[in-house]
Amino acid sequence: MMLRQGALALAALALTAPGMAQDAVRSPDQIVAAAPARDWVTIAPQDLLVMTLAPDAEGNPRKVVIQLIGAPFSQGWVDNIRTLARDHYWDGMAILRVQDNYVAQWGQPDPGMGIAEKPVPEGLKRMSDADYTAGSPNWLTSSTLRATKEPQVIGDWPAPMLTDPYGDYATFREGWPIAGIQQMHIARQWPVHCYGMVGVGRGNPPDTGDGSQLYAVIGHAPRHLDRNLAVVGRVVEGIEHLSSLPRGKGPASYYADPAKRVPILSVRIAADLPESERPHLQYLSTESESFARYADARANRRDPFFVASAGGADICNIPVPIRAVAAE
Amino acid sequence: MMLRQGALALAALALTAPGMAQDAVRSPDQIVAAAPARDWVTIAPQDLLVMTLAPDAEGNPRKVVIQLIGAPFSQGWVDNIRTLARDHYWDGMAILRVQDNYVAQWGQPDPGMGIAEKPVPEGLKRMSDADYTAGSPNWLTSSTLRATKEPQVIGDWPAPMLTDPYGDYATFREGWPIAGIQQMHIARQWPVHCYGMVGVGRGNPPDTGDGSQLYAVIGHAPRHLDRNLAVVGRVVEGIEHLSSLPRGKGPASYYADPAKRVPILSVRIAADLPESERPHLQYLSTESESFARYADARANRRDPFFVASAGGADICNIPVPIRAVAAE
Repeated sequence: MMLRQGALALAALALTAPGMAQDAVRSPDQIVAAAPARDWVTIAPQDLLVMTLAPDAEGNPRKVVIQLIGAPFSQGWVDNIRTLARDHYWDGMAILRVQDNYVAQWGQPDPGMGIAEKPVPEGLKRMSDADYTAGSPNWLTSSTLRATKEPQVIGDWPAPMLTDPYGDYATFREGWPIAGIQQMHIARQWPVHCYGMVGVGRGNPPDTGDGSQLYAVIGHAPRHLDRNLAVVGRVVEGIEHLSSLPRGKGPASYYADPAKRVPILSVRIAADLPESERPHLQYLSTESESFARYADARANRRDPFFVASAGGADICNIPVPIRAVAAE
Repeated sequence: MMLRQGALALAALALTAPGMAQDAVRSPDQIVAAAPARDWVTIAPQDLLVMTLAPDAEGNPRKVVIQLIGAPFSQGWVDNIRTLARDHYWDGMAILRVQDNYVAQWGQPDPGMGIAEKPVPEGLKRMSDADYTAGSPNWLTSSTLRATKEPQVIGDWPAPMLTDPYGDYATFREGWPIAGIQQMHIARQWPVHCYGMVGVGRGNPPDTGDGSQLYAVIGHAPRHLDRNLAVVGRVVEGIEHLSSLPRGKGPASYYADPAKRVPILSVRIAADLPESERPHLQYLSTESESFARYADARANRRDPFFVASAGGADICNIPVPIRAVAAE
């Protein structure tokens, strides 16, 4: 339908998922609901961070669960976060900053905030901005890089490829949205700042973030932060406990009134919790046929409400499906 | 820096704004702050909708100001909204639905919500899905359409052109973010669903929305709604009074508990308010040199915090600057 699709003549390279015709009127949610058990991946308890906030004004509990990102991305910071959680470093700290259409931020207070600085545990790794990206396998050529607007499964890369205004392409890798550049001598990938993604706060020098201050995206994807801040995970449960907080009224939307800060009761790695308190979550494999169909349906809505099909989608509008399951 | 930029060899078509070299380290905010008065456009009082919500739990006032979109987009619905406001139609209604990372919705209750239906005033226009888009001037050719990731001012179109995953291009028109398709026989443009944009709720048939139920985007731009729902404006003040509300817990995130609905005290066209109560707002002309520099800086952050420059931006990450000014 789009001019550019025709101009690039990529049809021969595209492998659409088999059986896609039957998705003619299925919504993305229906495709996800129909995904077989084999297409879901259980998130390991050592990859889940459970942040318990003080109850809300009505006494309702508030729990935020974060999935930590896997290799090859940001692993030094992820290691630090596990060390900090096992030190109970964040217990008694607070949500310090909530900026509309941007981030909610918590943890180590900035100097001058009227909160005593707490020493970080020994042994934290010092990371540099080189670690914001990772090398990518050599599976793309410049011709496949001219990705179309529609999600395509290209060559031997199993996840859909997308046009991206920020990289040479965007795609998915083991459950994570990523973008990449592919040049003659440089091929790099990085996790992207979509809604709900969690990153490491830092000062101006790029090596000043150790993982003790974190933020979650609560607005339109601030993709200009990609490769400038370390993405360490994403909120997989309870994002509304961050996104619906009152916005801060101080500089950079830090809370000017300390009474507005929501206290953090505890932050734990799920593997360190009793079995009965662990969240049990799965993500839809981004290498599965179900995900390819889901991505296609997000880009080409055919369910009855829609009269015009976009013919494309940006990577952050194809959120990776997450589901809670019963304990085994 | 990006492969595709080189491959498309568009440099000869690009007219970068003069004096851009001096923006080497200026942040987007600094560029906006330095924009001369002539680059700001006053929003007419007949184009501003003032929604006053009940005060919050602490008694703080909550006012949401919406700028209605101008021709050629959605003008039938915008006319209806002025008619509804002058009828005081929304007074006593409520915010009915708040869905995380999606929309806050208010106005006419859906059947079965336990709220008496209120008749709409006479004379509302009935619009069809053909009105979701508008014809565009014939100023693009297929060669200029291969826009680069970086904002470019192309040919005689004064606003920056952007790569877009949803259209053949994205750009700005008299203060509004728009996308378009350009084919041999069809050239259409439409306003896009960025954060804060306001649209018309409807049932499944696309002509069922009259403007009496509205929503504002409070999450990542749901661009799949483009051309499927009528964009009628954007929140230019007070979006936090919608985005920070508790999320609904009923189906589609409508409030299951009626007590959670925030009452609407009144909705008025600013031109109908006493002069002392009118908001005075301006937007940065999207056809100005200041805006071209601002867009370039959003796509290529050079201020000291940044270590990697994206080399591109999506249209919704270049929000049109709005400022409040003193009454004249």
